[in-house]
Amino acid sequence: MSETVYAKQGFNDVNRYKHQATYDVETIHAIVNNTPVLHVSFVPDPAIPAPVVLPMIGQLGLYPGDESKGELDWKCYLHGYVSSRLMKLADDAVKRGEEGLPLCVAATKVDGFVLTLTPNSHNYNYRSAVLHGFGTVVEDVEEKIWAMKLITNSVVPNRYDNTRVPPDGAEMQSTRILKLKISGASGKVREGVPEDERKDMKREDVLDSVWTGVIPVYEKLGEPQAGPYNRVKEIPEHVRRFVDEENEKREQYAFNAAGKPAPLKRPKKNDEN
Amino acid sequence: MSETVYAKQGFNDVNRYKHQATYDVETIHAIVNNTPVLHVSFVPDPAIPAPVVLPMIGQLGLYPGDESKGELDWKCYLHGYVSSRLMKLADDAVKRGEEGLPLCVAATKVDGFVLTLTPNSHNYNYRSAVLHGFGTVVEDVEEKIWAMKLITNSVVPNRYDNTRVPPDGAEMQSTRILKLKISGASGKVREGVPEDERKDMKREDVLDSVWTGVIPVYEKLGEPQAGPYNRVKEIPEHVRRFVDEENEKREQYAFNAAGKPAPLKRPKKNDEN
Repeated sequence: MSETVYAKQGFNDVNRYKHQATYDVETIHAIVNNTPVLHVSFVPDPAIPAPVVLPMIGQLGLYPGDESKGELDWKCYLHGYVSSRLMKLADDAVKRGEEGLPLCVAATKVDGFVLTLTPNSHNYNYRSAVLHGFGTVVEDVEEKIWAMKLITNSVVPNRYDNTRVPPDGAEMQSTRILKLKISGASGKVREGVPEDERKDMKREDVLDSVWTGVIPVYEKLGEPQAGPYNRVKEIPEHVRRFVDEENEKREQYAFNAAGKPAPLKRPKKNDEN
Repeated sequence: MSETVYAKQGFNDVNRYKHQATYDVETIHAIVNNTPVLHVSFVPDPAIPAPVVLPMIGQLGLYPGDESKGELDWKCYLHGYVSSRLMKLADDAVKRGEEGLPLCVAATKVDGFVLTLTPNSHNYNYRSAVLHGFGTVVEDVEEKIWAMKLITNSVVPNRYDNTRVPPDGAEMQSTRILKLKISGASGKVREGVPEDERKDMKREDVLDSVWTGVIPVYEKLGEPQAGPYNRVKEIPEHVRRFVDEENEKREQYAFNAAGKPAPLKRPKKNDEN
């Protein structure tokens, strides 16, 4: 954990299961940057309060040319299933003199299924982060290339320099990057063993009959499969190392989360707004 | 694939990578019901077009008491990190005589990282579904218990009947279920081998130097870890079978997706709105 935190401003306060909440910038950035798909929501028509949420690939980072007072100034760069609608909405907002298109971005990782004595106490081990802010389309060519590299390398480290780069004119034109300036953020982390309520912990018949424990869950990377027009015989070092190291790291995280004593207490009844 | 489809109504049309789109009800339901975390978005204040997106646990199903013309009438039941805010908003909408709170729910599964010759052609194998509709709080006690069972069993099949049930009065009171009536839905599926553009497929230097292929990705279930107050010595059949069968099924899906020839063509340049 770093010492920098996102300020609580009402709209980003965690009101449920507060004991699992975090505003730590480093923790939140790590959750976002380790999630392969982010879920991005926006409102297509300001006159109708109906949101849309779409899966996108994205990554937090600080562009060297960007002004910064530190980690709080990191932006979230989004790429992928950016419909033209979303880009147009962001452009329109800027044209109207607004800061950008209001966006909310969520990143969630499941680390385990926590099986308890009763359905109500069942839980997940998980890490989640939610970012609030304003999205604008990246127009600066250098920043756009920097963001494309950041996002490509988030899928497989060092992948960008191991492909045919730089992008040509047509590729630059067809690719769009949305940049989220963060106005607030929060995270939640649950790890640990099952926890049940006192009333069930007293029941011998229940304790004797219901298995309780954690099924660790992690995203496994399978053996890389060469494609039909691949000519490079050996799986390259950057791919091989990524698969091996990530698998070990992810498995360890999920098992550690399952085995650790729960660091925090169960929520009290009034721990809601 | 079933023969029933969600109607295209504009707001749920897929406008980008249309060749990967599906409106097939059975496909969309399967994606949602196999995703451990759904991302639910809503607009907290109708006067401000700023959405919020939250991770929640949910499941599609048809309550036996519910009127039905078939699969199109399935509802999405949401449980878990339902903040009181979300419940209050849904109640307020109903009180105003509206159909419910406008919601959008997304489910996404990553099945592989598709590594191509250039960063721009990089892709994921994935399955995603987006549901649009209106959320109301389930008040009927029988339907609520039915939904709690549906959701618990979506984490581990048959788990509900292997725990201390039924929920008591306090548990019924503290649990809330949100029911989404679907007004439109769409899905997207990408599977298959890498695909590059013709201009790069002609370059011997690129083909000779860049490894192309797919890293299969799937959610792995680790060996179940008994908790500190567990007394049941053997891992029960419903947990053991779930872990073994799911792991085999998931691994197979990801490898099949990686190895299959791509069934559909690359998007054309004008395949966007």
